[in-house]
Order: sequence, then C-alpha cells, then structure tokens
Amino acid sequence: MYSFRNDYSEGAHPLILEALTRTNLEQTIGYGEDPFCQQAREQIAAAIGRSDADIHFLVGGTQANAVVIKSALRPHQAAVAVESGHINVHETGAIEATGHKVVVVPGVHGKMTPEALQKAVNYHCDEHMVQPKLAYISQTTEIGTYYTLKELEALRACCDQNNLFLYVDGARLASALPLPEAPSLKDLGRLADAFYIGGTKCGALFGEAVVLLNPVLKADFRYLMKQHGAMLAKGRLMGVQFSRLFQDNLYTEIGLHENQMAIALKDGLSALGIPFLCDSISNQQFPILENRWLEPLSQEFQFEQMQEECGPGKTCIRLVTSWATPQEAAASFVSALKKLMD
Amino acid sequence: MYSFRNDYSEGAHPLILEALTRTNLEQTIGYGEDPFCQQAREQIAAAIGRSDADIHFLVGGTQANAVVIKSALRPHQAAVAVESGHINVHETGAIEATGHKVVVVPGVHGKMTPEALQKAVNYHCDEHMVQPKLAYISQTTEIGTYYTLKELEALRACCDQNNLFLYVDGARLASALPLPEAPSLKDLGRLADAFYIGGTKCGALFGEAVVLLNPVLKADFRYLMKQHGAMLAKGRLMGVQFSRLFQDNLYTEIGLHENQMAIALKDGLSALGIPFLCDSISNQQFPILENRWLEPLSQEFQFEQMQEECGPGKTCIRLVTSWATPQEAAASFVSALKKLMD
Amino acid sequence: MYSFRNDYSEGAHPLILEALTRTNLEQTIGYGEDPFCQQAREQIAAAIGRSDADIHFLVGGTQANAVVIKSALRPHQAAVAVESGHINVHETGAIEATGHKVVVVPGVHGKMTPEALQKAVNYHCDEHMVQPKLAYISQTTEIGTYYTLKELEALRACCDQNNLFLYVDGARLASALPLPEAPSLKDLGRLADAFYIGGTKCGALFGEAVVLLNPVLKADFRYLMKQHGAMLAKGRLMGVQFSRLFQDNLYTEIGLHENQMAIALKDGLSALGIPFLCDSISNQQFPILENRWLEPLSQEFQFEQMQEECGPGKTCIRLVTSWATPQEAAASFVSALKKLMD
Amino acid sequence: MYSFRNDYSEGAHPLILEALTRTNLEQTIGYGEDPFCQQAREQIAAAIGRSDADIHFLVGGTQANAVVIKSALRPHQAAVAVESGHINVHETGAIEATGHKVVVVPGVHGKMTPEALQKAVNYHCDEHMVQPKLAYISQTTEIGTYYTLKELEALRACCDQNNLFLYVDGARLASALPLPEAPSLKDLGRLADAFYIGGTKCGALFGEAVVLLNPVLKADFRYLMKQHGAMLAKGRLMGVQFSRLFQDNLYTEIGLHENQMAIALKDGLSALGIPFLCDSISNQQFPILENRWLEPLSQEFQFEQMQEECGPGKTCIRLVTSWATPQEAAASFVSALKKLMD
Repeated sequence: MYSFRNDYSEGAHPLILEALTRTNLEQTIGYGEDPFCQQAREQIAAAIGRSDADIHFLVGGTQANAVVIKSALRPHQAAVAVESGHINVHETGAIEATGHKVVVVPGVHGKMTPEALQKAVNYHCDEHMVQPKLAYISQTTEIGTYYTLKELEALRACCDQNNLFLYVDGARLASALPLPEAPSLKDLGRLADAFYIGGTKCGALFGEAVVLLNPVLKADFRYLMKQHGAMLAKGRLMGVQFSRLFQDNLYTEIGLHENQMAIALKDGLSALGIPFLCDSISNQQFPILENRWLEPLSQEFQFEQMQEECGPGKTCIRLVTSWATPQEAAASFVSALKKLMD
Repeated sequence: MYSFRNDYSEGAHPLILEALTRTNLEQTIGYGEDPFCQQAREQIAAAIGRSDADIHFLVGGTQANAVVIKSALRPHQAAVAVESGHINVHETGAIEATGHKVVVVPGVHGKMTPEALQKAVNYHCDEHMVQPKLAYISQTTEIGTYYTLKELEALRACCDQNNLFLYVDGARLASALPLPEAPSLKDLGRLADAFYIGGTKCGALFGEAVVLLNPVLKADFRYLMKQHGAMLAKGRLMGVQFSRLFQDNLYTEIGLHENQMAIALKDGLSALGIPFLCDSISNQQFPILENRWLEPLSQEFQFEQMQEECGPGKTCIRLVTSWATPQEAAASFVSALKKLMD
Repeated sequence: MYSFRNDYSEGAHPLILEALTRTNLEQTIGYGEDPFCQQAREQIAAAIGRSDADIHFLVGGTQANAVVIKSALRPHQAAVAVESGHINVHETGAIEATGHKVVVVPGVHGKMTPEALQKAVNYHCDEHMVQPKLAYISQTTEIGTYYTLKELEALRACCDQNNLFLYVDGARLASALPLPEAPSLKDLGRLADAFYIGGTKCGALFGEAVVLLNPVLKADFRYLMKQHGAMLAKGRLMGVQFSRLFQDNLYTEIGLHENQMAIALKDGLSALGIPFLCDSISNQQFPILENRWLEPLSQEFQFEQMQEECGPGKTCIRLVTSWATPQEAAASFVSALKKLMD
Repeated sequence: MYSFRNDYSEGAHPLILEALTRTNLEQTIGYGEDPFCQQAREQIAAAIGRSDADIHFLVGGTQANAVVIKSALRPHQAAVAVESGHINVHETGAIEATGHKVVVVPGVHGKMTPEALQKAVNYHCDEHMVQPKLAYISQTTEIGTYYTLKELEALRACCDQNNLFLYVDGARLASALPLPEAPSLKDLGRLADAFYIGGTKCGALFGEAVVLLNPVLKADFRYLMKQHGAMLAKGRLMGVQFSRLFQDNLYTEIGLHENQMAIALKDGLSALGIPFLCDSISNQQFPILENRWLEPLSQEFQFEQMQEECGPGKTCIRLVTSWATPQEAAASFVSALKKLMD
C-alpha cells in the first residue's frame, strides 16, 4: 500500500536526520538562540538576498500563519484570502481565534487577483466594517497552482497602493521554486513583507522558517511566538534542519524531485484521458475519477477525496508527491488505474 | 431637510421619555437588578409565553450579538450567517474579535434557507475546520425582508437535526411582528434558542432585551455581560423603557406606524415606476434610483446609498421609517422624486 | 430608606434630563458624528486645553477601559495596575478577555508609586514574560484617595523613562477635580496619554468621555469602539449630556456637592470615634463599624460591605455620595449610628 | 564548558533518537492518528490505570497549558495559580491571550495550599469578578519542590468542594515520580481532571502527552489543538517518542538519573555550607552564591541567575540536571566552587 495522501507521511529526509543525529549531544542554549539557528538564518538570508531580514523558526504552518498575522494586525484589521486559502478553511478558525476576520475574495485557479483584492478593499469603506490590512496568499496554492513572478509583482503593486502587507504562505515553497516563471527566493525577499519557507512538507521532521522583511513587522516577534506556544524549547532542532536544507541545494532538489514525480503522475493519467480539477505542475495533482474506481484503487493506494463537486458519478482526488516518493509509485498508480479502465 | 437615513435619528418615543423622567429621582440598585427591570422582564416573559425565559437588557445590538454568541460557543465553534447578515459585515468583526468565525452561506432575499445551512454543516466535516454551532438570522433582515412562521419552523427543524442553536437578531423586531404570516413573539419564544427584542431602532433611547430560552445558554450570562462592558450601571434605564414599550401595546404600535410609513413610500414610488432591490413591506425600503436624481434629492432628504451594483447609472438607496416619521415625510419624498422625473 | 450604595442610584441630574428632553425630537446622524457630540468635544477640548485631543463618547467605564487598553497594546503587552485597580478585580477579567495580562503592583493607599511601577518593568526582562506598556490608575482611586499633581507628575516621569502609556480612569473625576493639590483637567490634558471623564457616576444617565492625547493612540479608535459594541447608535445622547455637564461649571459643581456630603459623613462619624479604612476626602467613605450595628443600620440605609479584613467583630462599609445626596441623608446616617452606639 | 542552564540543552535521549531513526521511512497518516501514537496512548493509559483517558500529544508545554485551559474554561472563568506558577509569569501571558485571567494565590514553597485556593474562590463572589474554575499546579514546581500524595489529595478535595478542575503541569514529571511520598502516575490518573506528562524536559526531542480524565474536558479537544497550531502534521514523531519513553521504564529511569545528579550537586554544595532558596530534591537546585563567585564560575559552567532577592552581595542561581548530565559535571561544579571559596 503506497500513500499519496500528503507530503508528510514519512519522517525526515535522511540527510536531515543524519544532521540531527550528528549534533544530538551538543549542548546549546534554548529557544532558537543557538549557533545552529544562527547559521541557518545566515544561509537563508543569503539565499533570499536580504541580510536585513529577521528569520524565526516555528514548528508548523497553522502556528506560523497565526503568529505572523496576529503580530501584523491591530484588533480591527483583517487578512484577505481566496476562498480556498488555507487560513480560510483548513485551520479551524485559527486566525479568527486571534480576533481577526478573514475577508474572502473569489480566487482564479486558487489565486488572488489584484482586481479581487482591490474590490475587497474598496468595499470595506468605514469603521462599521473590518479594515483589510494583509493579503494572504499561498505558494504553491492549495490546489497546486502557483503565482508567476509577474502575478506576484502585480499583487505587490496592489498592496502598495492600498497600504497592505503581502504575506506568502510557503508551506510547499520547495515545489514552487523550480517552476517556470515562478518567483525565486530573492524575488520573494524583494516583494513580500513576510513569508515562510516550509520545512514540514519539504523534507524536514517539522519546522517553518518565517522571514520578516518589512521593518514594521519585526518588533517583538519573539514575544508573540512565545505567547502562542510557538517557541520550541530545543529550537536548535529547526536550526539544524534548515541549515541542512539550505546546504548543497537540498531544498531545491527536494522540490525538483517531488515535481518530477507529480509530472509522471500527471502525464500518465493524462495519457489515459483523465481530466484534472486544475492545471497543476507542482507536487499536488487533482485528477477527477469515476467513483467506481475509488474503492479498488484504495486497496493499493491512499489518497484524499476532495469535496469539490465534479459532476455525477465523479470525484476529485488529491495525489501528493514528496522527497520520498519513488519512481515506481507513480508508475504503479497509473497502471493500476489503466487496469481499472480497461 | 428630513432624514430617512435610519430609525434612530431622534431620541426616544415621547411616552418612553416621559417614563424616564417620571422615575428619574427614585433610588434603585444598579446593574439590572432593580424593580423596573424586574417588571419589564415579567411583561416580556408574558408576551412571549415563556415564564422560564432568562431576560437581560443590553445597550446595543452589536454588543448583544457578541455577548450571546460568545456565551453560546466553545472556542472552535462558529456562527453561520447569510452574507448580508449584520454580524458578517456591519459589526467590524465583533464576532471574530471574540475568537469565532462567521461561516457565510448564500442568502435568498437576505434570508437563510435550511438547504444552505445544511450544506454548510455538511462541509465542515472534521477538526481541521471550525464547527458550525449557531445559526444567526435577523428579523426583519438587513434588506427589509422577513421570515414567515413557516420559514422559521423549517430553520428550527434544520437546527434540531444538526444540534445547532437558533439565534434571532431582532433589532427591528417591532417592524416584523405585524407582518402577514410573521412569527409572533410567542412563536419566537417557542422556536428560538435565544433572540433579542430591539429597543434602539424601535423607539427607545437605547437598549435590547436578550431572551435566553435554551437552558444551556442561561448559565452565568451576567458574567459575560459584565466582562464585555455590557452591563449598564444604571440598568434601570432599560427596565423603565422596556416596561413602557410592553405596556398598552406601544411596541406593536410603533411597528405598525413605521410599516405604514414605509408602505406609503413604497406605493408612491412604485406608482412612479421605480424598481426596488427586493420586495420589502417592512420599515426599510430600497428603491433603485437614477444617479442624476441623487444630488437634488439630497438637498431635501437624507438617506444612505447602498454598495450593491444596480446597473449603469443607477444606485440603490435605503429609506428607513420610524415611530417618528410623519405622514408628510413620505408624501413629500415621493412628490420630490416625481418632480425630478418629469 | 436612603441608599449610600453608590453614586448611580438615581437617573440623571435634572439639568441633564432637561437637555435630553429639549433636544429629543431633533434628527441627527448616528454614532457620535452629530452636532451635539461635536459641541461637547469642543467644550471638553477647551476645558483640558488641548485642541488636538481626540474625544470619543462611550457608554460605560468597563467598556471604555477595555477599548482604550485593547487599542493601545500589541498582543504581548500588559497593563499595570495596583491590586485594588478596577480593571484588576471588578471588571470580570475584561482586559484579559481582550488578550492582555494585568500586571499587579502593590498600591500605597490605593495608589501606584513610581517605585512599584519601575520594579514591575524591571522584573519583566525578556520575551518569556509579558511586556508592561501601559500604567492604569484611577482618579479618584477605588478606595477614595487621589493622586496629587506632584504624584501624577512623578508617575508621568516614570512612564517616560520606560516608554509606557499613562492612562487615567476618571470614573469619579468630578469628585477628584476640586480636591486640594489635585491635578486639574488641564494637568490631565498635559500629563496623561489618555484618560476618561466619567459621566455615569457624575450625574449623567450614562457615558464616559475618552480623551486621547498621544497621537499613537488616536488611529482608528472608532473601529475599536464599533467592534467592541461601544459605539452607541444614538450617540447624540452622550453629546447632549456632556455638553450640558461642561456648561456653567455643572461638572465641577456636582463634584463639589458630593464631596461636601462626604465630608459631612466623615466629620460626623469621626466625631463619634469611628475609624476609617483610609483617609478619603472624596465622595467615597469607608468607615469601619462593629458588626452588631450593621443589621439595624441597614433597616434605614443601604450600603456596601467591603471584603477587607478589619479585625474581629468589625466590618468596613462603603458610603458613596452623589449629586443627588441631600444634606439630611448624611446627618441622619450619623445620628442613626450615634443612637446605636449609645 | 558544561551547561546546567536547563534540561533541554541536548537533543534526545539516544534510545529515542534510535526509535525515530528506525521508523523514519514508514508511511503513516498525519496529525496523531497513526499507529505509533495509538501504541503510545495505550502504554500511557496502562501506566496511569485509566483505559478511559483521552490522550493527546502536543509539541510544548506553553501550548499544552493554553489549549487545555482554553478548552476547559468559559470566557468568564479563570485559572488559579501560585505566583511562581509557570502560566503566571513565564509564558508571556499565553493564558490571558486566550481571554482568561490567571488568579494568583500565595504559594508555600512554590506550592498551592487548599487554604489559599479556598480563599481565592471565596473572594470571587459575584459576576463583577472572574469565576475561578481551574486550579493549575506544577509537579515538580517551578522551584524544584513537589506535591506529596497527601497534598495532592487535599487539593483534590478542595477542588471537589468548589467545583473546580484540577490540572497538573507535568513538564518535569519524570523527576517528580521517583520522589518519596510523591503521587504515582496512577495517583495522577485518579486525582487530576487533566495533566500532562512532559517529554521535552525528560529526554524527548519535544512533546507533551496531555491526559484528559474528566469527561467534560474531552469533547472536541482535537479542534482546539488544531486551532491553536498544536496539532503536529507528523504527529507520529511524538507517538514514537512516547512509546519509547514508556517502554522498559525509560521515563522513570530518566527521572531517577537526573535526581541523582541533582542530589550530588546538593550534597556537595551543602557540604561547603552553601544555602539554598528552598529544599529541593528534584532536578532543579537553587543554591545562593556570593556575587563575586559568579563571574569565575561562568567561565566553566552555564547556569541561570534568578531574580529573587537573597540579601546583599548574594544571588540565587539555578542548576538543572538531565538524562544527559554526567557524574563528573556535578563533581566538577562543586570542586570549582570549593576552589573559589578557599
């Protein structure tokens, strides 16, 4: 049984586990002030081309989003997200739990457009409504699409015109970075007010590197982390992992591998005539299958079924590839489906 | 210059002000535990046919909604509202500020349907999403429509099936009560888990009477009120006002009068061929005017312009009548518009 | 039966009620943007000598404190108060409900000292603890004492040294203003970052005028008010009341009268040898009585019993005078007690 | 340079790291629903003698405390803690950030007494004050002392009488379990409404096992976890670790070792005549040193300086031992100090 359920089904990439093992008995100070974290910060700062960035390591994405957004907003201000945005649906109201509304705008292929953002800003015109203050986007998006550099620049311009923060959730940033016309880490360092570089879904045991670029967002961030329970006692664990991810291009290579496995799935299924929810070339694929295939397929593979409506007798499923996905897994999924279709 | 901007442009109905003046020098205990509040509670309990109801007086509607909803929900639970619901748009994120998401469902003429509610409940299927727990509806709605008894019963049934609280925002309940097939106060007392009887928009200086019917919602409500700053020191002011509103049918008569004034507007404008945003027979009317009429009209009348898009060159405005609206006001608005149309 | 229980046992001072009645039928815009509020703002700005002040009208003190403090603090920051501070004990955790800790320092006669404040600031030394950011004091204090101008200036200096906001809860400011060496309204306008001028306990039906002086505190305050349910629909009610309070020295005269009544109580009881919890010359008096007198006294008078321990067989009670307290009330209380002591 | 700064200076106990490595490539479902977590739950349930317990794995202690307390309390309710309680001082207001006051009672040697708890409950007598609902204690305490079984039973009785939850923060529970007359895991399973078994400070990379015993506390806890960002994607990491900790008595042995190292320090320092802040026999020791020794000592050892005042020229320091502390570390600290004293 192989699982395509997600990209966090295994432990860590072996090179990361090796680094953790090698450094295990060294004593360090806690809470992210250790030399490993310091080294990882320097590597990331170099990679994004911003030596002035503040970089903090948090354990998970829901936590990272909540702490960044809580830190950025005054009580009456709101984050703006597309309806499929992770903070809107899949974080159990974590942003609202910090007191802030998530203003929803319609997405196009899972992405926010400057037009939709501008319309939301215009609509919220006085103190009887919340004040939009931060645009939240995900790279890649929750449905596998991604923002091109040009699209990101257009959003940045819209944020500038409206005095909004632009925050990028990079849970699956490794998968986005190698894609054609995608913004690079340096582009993100130039265009975002804040973003996070995902570790959990990109080969680490856990951990997300929050990068704060706008000086307004930097003050006292560690207080917010600690208050939210997001300051790991053995913070060095994330320093060690991110330091290894940013050594010898490991982060990029993980992204490349998972994309290749995804394309193998995509190409194989397309050749069978299977339609997709959207045109993704990243590590999440959303084929639309006939319901009668689901049960037999699930004898051999694990995957998530989506709630989207895809027509009578059909269901969209999600297939996710990772650093650990072997070549054979994609091939065997395609051939298993082919057998069912025959 | 006459203002149709809202139903709280004046002070209080003269009979209410008279009651406040008459009792002004009596000494009472504070915080709603005085004999005036006790008397008003008894009158309301009788009117709704529920001697077991807990009745509390709060100053305003945003406050009442926030305290009731905060009291009813655990941290991961959400209120469900239609997109035009007051808590969704016009309370500056007051519900989110208490930590709770407002789940939005599409309304039909501003009203929640059991189908939409059921779909929202079904969608939120596990702990990665908030848990819908309370259905919030307004009677009359924010666009002047209202729930019939039958519609309210259908929502109640849907709430029962899904273990949801049904909460009715009665900011403009006086206007709703006299409408054909509308639920009576006794119906509300039978069908809602909680509702509030609006005072501010129905002739009082201020004040909303929150009625708690479901025993689960009653515990420690005064703590929640106090914590939110919603326990008026001179609580007797609301006791005096609601006691007067529920004496000699004053509350009903206020509703009748404001509806009559609204119908005068509606009939007059309809006779001129003016279309409306929706078919309202309550004290809010939403005619769609040509933009070129707005400026000259606003020389003589105040009114709100809505953000809804109504086609090129057109704007929807809101006209609100109240206990204080004189017959001549409606007539003169119609004739002023007629002059512009000629 | 006469009640000394508090200074909000009656409705409003007759001159205020007269003003409300006189203006009752005028139509105004809502939410505090009406001409009455504008006039009251100008009168208050003149009285405090700060034409640059932002002045907002809120309904009650718990609400005013919560909105000001929530607006002033980032999530990890805390208010500092003495243990008897109203926000610490008597507001049902309203400040904590907005997410902020109240750091408690020991008071001296109910007052905060610069030494205690400095010590609290020093103690909170890193991101594992909250960050003190606002000093909360009450004028007069919860036990009837008051800050002299010199004491207020010393606190201001301490706040300046530590980059803290100084916020003054003036629920009973009318009683404080006439006291010897007390800071004037102009002193408050010069020394506080924000304060509120109490209406509820100083003759109004309700209402507190929040004065924001530090520009940092001014941004978007109306959003915070609305979100908290603290923006009264008929905001004009507070404009009318405060405008009257600041006309013809009414506010000062109310303070003078209630202090005179309190001194009558104090002198009368002192002459009987009754000890007091503290040396108050404001409108709250805290005599310590023998328990056996309480029951017979409560046949004729209402008053609160304090929780402070005063020795075996003794109880501290609170007597509060107001604009409505007649000369005879104080005299009759003293003579009733004298009878019991004989 | 050896660090006694805390018990989380290294990575994980080698046996735990070995288990993580061994299971690294197995695919499991996420979010704590994997077989490793299931196994660890069964082992813990057996160890505490409560097959009905709900057991959840969270990453850190601040997070665990916030989620449990937020889940247990309604908005107006408060946790009670001693002044040195971790939630009161060292969690940056994490509890207040969830909306709840921490009511502080004086501790005796860092421990809560039933008398102090009862007094706090009695004091909070009406809706103008928060309602104490949960007693928070730490085992061992923040200053190294511990509750005996008898003391825990007395607190339980007090909680029963006042309808309070009893919640035990077991960040350093491994150190407490072997101490004389200390409650066993089964005692905790019988006496607490909820507690957590610390992993981070007891040999794990990270992780705390929250044990919910009172049925009232169990509902929807996973929603609360997810909302707070406390549901680890690769939850299996905690399952693997706790499963190993509860195999072959590893958890107990870790506690025993760290206590032995602490006693070696205590005995050695006592023999030198060094006084202590309190009489601790657990893995935290608080000797009081002369200030002139601190600088030379810190050339060879790392340790925390406490803020407690210990008399002129003296400072209390904290020495913490762990599973990784070697015998020689304690001996060399003592001899280093001896040299300075000569």
